[in-house]
Amino acid sequence: MKLYDHPTAPNPRRVHVYLAEKGLEIERVNVDMAKREHKSDAFMKKNPNGQIPVLELDDGSFISESVSICRYLEALHPEPSMFGHAAADIGRIDMHLRRIELLLGRNVSVSWVNGPIVGKMGRFVQIPEAKAQSDAFVHNFYQRLDNELAERKMIAGDDYSIADITAMVTIDFAEQLVDLEPDVELKHLARWRSEVAARPSATAP
Amino acid sequence: MKLYDHPTAPNPRRVHVYLAEKGLEIERVNVDMAKREHKSDAFMKKNPNGQIPVLELDDGSFISESVSICRYLEALHPEPSMFGHAAADIGRIDMHLRRIELLLGRNVSVSWVNGPIVGKMGRFVQIPEAKAQSDAFVHNFYQRLDNELAERKMIAGDDYSIADITAMVTIDFAEQLVDLEPDVELKHLARWRSEVAARPSATAP
Repeated sequence: MKLYDHPTAPNPRRVHVYLAEKGLEIERVNVDMAKREHKSDAFMKKNPNGQIPVLELDDGSFISESVSICRYLEALHPEPSMFGHAAADIGRIDMHLRRIELLLGRNVSVSWVNGPIVGKMGRFVQIPEAKAQSDAFVHNFYQRLDNELAERKMIAGDDYSIADITAMVTIDFAEQLVDLEPDVELKHLARWRSEVAARPSATAP
Repeated sequence: MKLYDHPTAPNPRRVHVYLAEKGLEIERVNVDMAKREHKSDAFMKKNPNGQIPVLELDDGSFISESVSICRYLEALHPEPSMFGHAAADIGRIDMHLRRIELLLGRNVSVSWVNGPIVGKMGRFVQIPEAKAQSDAFVHNFYQRLDNELAERKMIAGDDYSIADITAMVTIDFAEQLVDLEPDVELKHLARWRSEVAARPSATAP
């Protein structure tokens, strides 16, 4: 098994954190994003989205999408559980994961592609009004997370899960590269952020 | 168990098709979307997104998100499999499901919220440039699906799965309500559409 990877990009980081939480190691192949190797014809055969990470299985097939890679590994190594074992836990964790991805992640992504860093790359027709909408959505969602984290220890309940990994990576990216930092008054969100950041997995290479 | 539901909305339809494929029946509670019952305080306690479907479990807890509801039911009723059993199948089906949702579904949604039907509702500041981008993306993605369906019977491989349910519901919605019909020249996509539409589940109430 081989992981086509990049040491600092946000989606590969989700897999790095997951591997550290599970105590797993996989051979890594660094994809040179500065040279746009992920958009090369050879790489697009591995993943037609032209994105990393991609996991190459021993039979030569490929799984892309960070969460799908984690689900594959979870089926091989069920403990410690990051997706839940009981039906109700599976449903609840997936629901929270989807809210993070489809609401928070989607809007962070709109702010990113319409923001200054992507603007300087000059490869995308930007829409400032779309960024204004998504920026506002993200700040509202931070408030909602703060309310929820007043009631629960982690994103999906008492236990750390794939929903926490995804939320941590998304919010760190939003703060560091999209200028969408959670308001300092959101104390419960800050409490959760410091707890997940203190886990050794948060800085896993 | 109770499903908060609507007979014709696209996300509930994903669960209806899934239930029909699995041969399951669940008590339904119709949510009056015309009266905006899904945005009421009482309903927002069930799902803070203000969306249906929502599944109420026997312990009084709630699972929203159509795919999360299906994952919960899949854990209780594994056959016939819609998410895969072997690790490689689980990863591959999830990867294709995510491509349908995060690429096709996301862009159909942008075209919908910026299109004429939502425009007439007057509840959202529309961005015509965003619709132009997402319309073009959807047509490119249809071409990509057509290329893939020249090589495979179903969206994620040989077997019908949750990825087919999601793709069928998304493309039917795009065609019927967002004016994003696949080009008639996309023969492989048309072949797959006619096969999934011919299953009894496609018209399940």
